[in-house]
Amino acid sequence: MKPSIPKGTRDFSPTEIANRNYIFNTIKAAFETFGFQPIETPSFENSSTLMGKYGDEGDRLIFKILNSGDFLAKADEKLLSEKASLQVTSQISEKALRYDLTVPFARYVVQHQNEITFPFKRYQIQPVWRADRPQKGRFREFYQCDADVVGSKSLWQEVEFIQLYDTVFSKLSLAGTTIKINNRKILSGIAEVIGAKDKLIDFTVALDKLDKIGKEGVVKEMISKGITEDAIEKVSPLFDFSGSNQDKISSLENMLQASEEGLKGVEELRFVCNTVEELGLQTASLEVDVTLARGLNYYTGAIFEVAAPKEVKMGSIGGGGRYDDLTGIFGMPDVSGVGISFGLDRIYLVLEELGLFKAVELPKPKVLFVNFGAAEALFSMKAIAALRKNNIKSELYPDDAKMKKQMNYANKREIEFVVIVGSQEIEKNEFTLKNMKSGEQDTCSISELVAKLSS
Amino acid sequence: MKPSIPKGTRDFSPTEIANRNYIFNTIKAAFETFGFQPIETPSFENSSTLMGKYGDEGDRLIFKILNSGDFLAKADEKLLSEKASLQVTSQISEKALRYDLTVPFARYVVQHQNEITFPFKRYQIQPVWRADRPQKGRFREFYQCDADVVGSKSLWQEVEFIQLYDTVFSKLSLAGTTIKINNRKILSGIAEVIGAKDKLIDFTVALDKLDKIGKEGVVKEMISKGITEDAIEKVSPLFDFSGSNQDKISSLENMLQASEEGLKGVEELRFVCNTVEELGLQTASLEVDVTLARGLNYYTGAIFEVAAPKEVKMGSIGGGGRYDDLTGIFGMPDVSGVGISFGLDRIYLVLEELGLFKAVELPKPKVLFVNFGAAEALFSMKAIAALRKNNIKSELYPDDAKMKKQMNYANKREIEFVVIVGSQEIEKNEFTLKNMKSGEQDTCSISELVAKLSS
Repeated sequence: MKPSIPKGTRDFSPTEIANRNYIFNTIKAAFETFGFQPIETPSFENSSTLMGKYGDEGDRLIFKILNSGDFLAKADEKLLSEKASLQVTSQISEKALRYDLTVPFARYVVQHQNEITFPFKRYQIQPVWRADRPQKGRFREFYQCDADVVGSKSLWQEVEFIQLYDTVFSKLSLAGTTIKINNRKILSGIAEVIGAKDKLIDFTVALDKLDKIGKEGVVKEMISKGITEDAIEKVSPLFDFSGSNQDKISSLENMLQASEEGLKGVEELRFVCNTVEELGLQTASLEVDVTLARGLNYYTGAIFEVAAPKEVKMGSIGGGGRYDDLTGIFGMPDVSGVGISFGLDRIYLVLEELGLFKAVELPKPKVLFVNFGAAEALFSMKAIAALRKNNIKSELYPDDAKMKKQMNYANKREIEFVVIVGSQEIEKNEFTLKNMKSGEQDTCSISELVAKLSS
Repeated sequence: MKPSIPKGTRDFSPTEIANRNYIFNTIKAAFETFGFQPIETPSFENSSTLMGKYGDEGDRLIFKILNSGDFLAKADEKLLSEKASLQVTSQISEKALRYDLTVPFARYVVQHQNEITFPFKRYQIQPVWRADRPQKGRFREFYQCDADVVGSKSLWQEVEFIQLYDTVFSKLSLAGTTIKINNRKILSGIAEVIGAKDKLIDFTVALDKLDKIGKEGVVKEMISKGITEDAIEKVSPLFDFSGSNQDKISSLENMLQASEEGLKGVEELRFVCNTVEELGLQTASLEVDVTLARGLNYYTGAIFEVAAPKEVKMGSIGGGGRYDDLTGIFGMPDVSGVGISFGLDRIYLVLEELGLFKAVELPKPKVLFVNFGAAEALFSMKAIAALRKNNIKSELYPDDAKMKKQMNYANKREIEFVVIVGSQEIEKNEFTLKNMKSGEQDTCSISELVAKLSS
């Protein structure tokens, strides 16, 4: 029976690790350049910290950890006999795996509020777990890379987060990303104007289909959802919502004159878009998108989502926004936060598809010493020690196997250089260095060896 | 109600992360210099992969994950009504958190055997989870840093692992560690000589107390455990087991003449010790210790354990050994492996106690731009963009708060430089740079600013 791993989880090979670390390190370096500091939280939290924070669907998808020992002792006999799984859960499980990085971060801020200097710019790169149905780009264990600022309502943060996205994707050579931006207050304004807050999601979902089903189709869908023709008429500019961000913002301003909150949203959006335009982006473009309704119940200001370059079919590769009351759920009110997340696994798939991992250095030795026996190995090990002190990745083939087998090993691992040490080399105190690509062979001293392999 | 985290788990602050990364990066760099490649495995495995691999105590300490959805549906009603926790576990839980890195590695090797080039030198740095009683240096979530080679019986690997320990601890400036070495075959030889394989653990446990209770005490304990006086006499040289490694090895050789396996162990130990002596170590010492019986049922050749410098009271900070049949449990026989592990959390405590984190750079910005309002902030953001392109960690204070508040923030975060931009600076297109330690102030252009902060 061949062993396997749980569905939705993955083993990572050395090559995959190298590619993933390339992304992690790029994101991490950008986070730190922007002044963010790392924190980490435990893989599992008390269930009370997580449950009820992500809606019913979220509660269902959270992985629960069984209490240790005689866990049934505390369980209610009647519920057990009724097999009431839902109610029994809290009696036999007190811990659960992290579902995202935001709720643990909120918990961290409240718990450590006296040690933190606000505004607190933190980043966190850790795995999260969801009992979701696995599919392409969706796993049960995956990494999130989050940066958030808490303790300031300044819109400069929104500007910085757009720059941060642009910096990371430019560094990854992923040109042509689109950073979509919206504002919760504009959505509220639209809801006000169409006269039905509860219809807002139906409205944005329908509007999002404009490209596919055209204006007529969208209007038809909206009416079927109970939005009146009169209301639709009031926001009709959204059906021809094109042109520059400035055009869109002006159009929104006109449309939302009747909504104070809507106009506040327009003002915020204008500041962010104007400032980003003034400062410039490297390879990304910023696009106002009023259909963006991501995490609607959560965000209170800016909403972000990043789309991969158009030639790649992939869901969003990042997202975020502002939430005015992050820590309220843990009893610390009025702490505004804003943050973004990078979707590591999807970014990986995009870079792979576009062949952008070419430059990644694999964690393999630069040089292999062929092993001809005890005396040769000992002589080699002295040289290897010198190479390693100079940070040159090197190894001795562990056994004095046949030359062909050792060379095969070097080829399979794509090791660039091989050193051959026989009795002649020992006698002359020198090394035969072979370039495995060119086939070129050279005799050299230990210091020449260090010099040649250092380059 | 202040939120909390489960016992035995930890939040890590930015400073702690920086210190931990210093250790991780040192270990990782050494692993790669020695030719090891990284892999990663999922946080949870199928229960069948883990259960039964660590003994009954291990099975008890493994964290089990509750099946999703209506998990009680499949459970046996009779067992539920009897509250038979142990038997019910396998009916409501199919996954479990990783308990160590060795078993998942064995599973990986078997599962991916056709993609792997043997000998396979892998390293793995990941957290593991154990439902153990928390105490100083023992946590329920902690990291292991493992390096193993599978597919070669060469003793050069043992030599390399000793060098690897020495390299890592030397790089961490942790001088004075002791790498203890023993060999399972020598222990088998001793068992043969004392005529009782089942008494071996009692024997080594008693012998280990020599320092504390003296020869007489040890002999008394051995006799109480049923080891005969005659047997004890045969291995009496172990009671005066001092001197150089060479002395000890010679003594063992004499003592184990009657045991073929014991002599094989002596030969292996001699090769490793002689070679290490010939090659030299930087700051560690290698010490033959026949009381070392770590993982007795597991190892088949060399056994290692590393002790912190004598001035620090701490259990072992690393350990490992050779196991001749690592992958047999997953149906792939005769694959020999040898490996070592670094105990991150204990190494952390040792470095902290010895004040060895001084050199670690904290992830904080090098420079803070004071925020005097919209125009000043915009001017600052242009400079910040230039600094960040030069990898200078920089940030703008997000709000135009009172100067005192902003300077307090800089001081609390121990930011080295502050840049002040007022209307005068904007007019002259220059920056006032303040060194927060010396109080020195300078006026400079953007290019001078980049140059000064790059150093």
